[in-house]
Amino acid sequence: MCPAKVNDRYDRGFIIPIGGGEKKVKTSSILNRFIELSGGRDARIVIIPTASRLEDTGDRYLEVFTEIGVKSVSVVSLDQREDCEDMIKLAKLEDATGIFMTGGDQLRLSTIIGGTSVSKLMRKANSEGVHIAGTSAGAAFIPEHMIAFGRGGATPKSGLATLAPGLGLTNKVIIDQHFRERGRLGRLLSALAYNPFAIGLGVDEDTAAFIGPDDVIEVIGSGGITVIDPTDLQHSSMADVGRLKPVCLIGIRLHILLDGGRYDLSTREASPASG
Amino acid sequence: MCPAKVNDRYDRGFIIPIGGGEKKVKTSSILNRFIELSGGRDARIVIIPTASRLEDTGDRYLEVFTEIGVKSVSVVSLDQREDCEDMIKLAKLEDATGIFMTGGDQLRLSTIIGGTSVSKLMRKANSEGVHIAGTSAGAAFIPEHMIAFGRGGATPKSGLATLAPGLGLTNKVIIDQHFRERGRLGRLLSALAYNPFAIGLGVDEDTAAFIGPDDVIEVIGSGGITVIDPTDLQHSSMADVGRLKPVCLIGIRLHILLDGGRYDLSTREASPASG
Repeated sequence: MCPAKVNDRYDRGFIIPIGGGEKKVKTSSILNRFIELSGGRDARIVIIPTASRLEDTGDRYLEVFTEIGVKSVSVVSLDQREDCEDMIKLAKLEDATGIFMTGGDQLRLSTIIGGTSVSKLMRKANSEGVHIAGTSAGAAFIPEHMIAFGRGGATPKSGLATLAPGLGLTNKVIIDQHFRERGRLGRLLSALAYNPFAIGLGVDEDTAAFIGPDDVIEVIGSGGITVIDPTDLQHSSMADVGRLKPVCLIGIRLHILLDGGRYDLSTREASPASG
Repeated sequence: MCPAKVNDRYDRGFIIPIGGGEKKVKTSSILNRFIELSGGRDARIVIIPTASRLEDTGDRYLEVFTEIGVKSVSVVSLDQREDCEDMIKLAKLEDATGIFMTGGDQLRLSTIIGGTSVSKLMRKANSEGVHIAGTSAGAAFIPEHMIAFGRGGATPKSGLATLAPGLGLTNKVIIDQHFRERGRLGRLLSALAYNPFAIGLGVDEDTAAFIGPDDVIEVIGSGGITVIDPTDLQHSSMADVGRLKPVCLIGIRLHILLDGGRYDLSTREASPASG
């Protein structure tokens, strides 16, 4: 599996990892921006509550998107792999202008959706301009390399993060969520230390990275995003150390961006909110 | 108060912040290295247990230094400011080749020793070649700018760290201790964000930074040292944000060094353990 191929005829849709714990209210700047991108009142939003084991998770988002004013919102339940081949569900997804994945457990997303027609459809839809957001587990699932699970802590250790293939909308970032709240810097550094080609995005709660078709990220929300850039990494001892032993890393670049801040994944340049 | 002036006629002694929780045993690589630098069996070691409120803290180090083979070890109790003008205590300190400050509360060290004859003597002694080590609170007290207290968390916030003047052996570093164990990256970043001229050293437990007279740091111990270099900081929003609100920082450089790793405070270059 490779990251979703971008179609030359269309701009890719936004990829929107949210750190979890976003305010599920009509005034949420994150949810409103997602709806605005997807067409405003005329957006056709599909909610995928697969990550959650709670029955009402999808309905909570359905309510808030309806309150925001969207006329067409539906919940598509995918609880088993065979649901992901259901023609009616696929048709609903095919018609969406925005797809939203709730929180829960990212391994539910990857084990149920991974490799199915839903996964192929989502990758193709995003490459053709459909915006895909995910919160918490839904955010973790978005990239090619997903942090499946791990432990907290500020400094990296071998084995602290366990990676698995994700949905694959982009391979340019590895995402961790509830970042500040659960002290996950060590886990994200560990995930990057295996193969420092991607940028690490540590997304705080009630905060989102709006990754545009031009690969410029805009931060929206009340928390921050910790950007970890290993471009200039001179040394990683990950290959030499035992499990859960500390790892030596030399040359990490780190930015902490707040609402309105930007990061360009191509040039790897950060800028604060203007004004 | 300025950082201790280095005397041209002598090499400055080593400055040795230890992250706390070091193994207090005969085989401790940290304690052995400190003793070896200070003259081995012929070292004259003075222990300052001021940071601690426990009566036996000094004696525990006295025992272990004696077990290592040092013939002259003594505990100099400084419990009130007037103790710091006591001629007998000052004479003992004046005769030392190595001085060791125990853990406890760094505000006890700064409030009792700060501005007294003991503090002046320690600064002069270090500039003339006497090695000064401190563990935990003793480590925090070492530099010009001391983290007095603060809160945990991986990302920086305004007011997360409260700075106070320390002993002032160097102004090139700000030190935080129990670093990995207490998740203090946010606190150290906050301390640096006020005025990013110093290098941040986050010292894990059972780990020490041996800062040589050439300002090259060698890491010794079972944990790691997180070096935070704000040299290329392009932006800090510290001046604009409210108390305990997140801070935007762009352009931090970060290294995680393990036993044998080195960091040159002059060139700001890190290198892993060789071999």
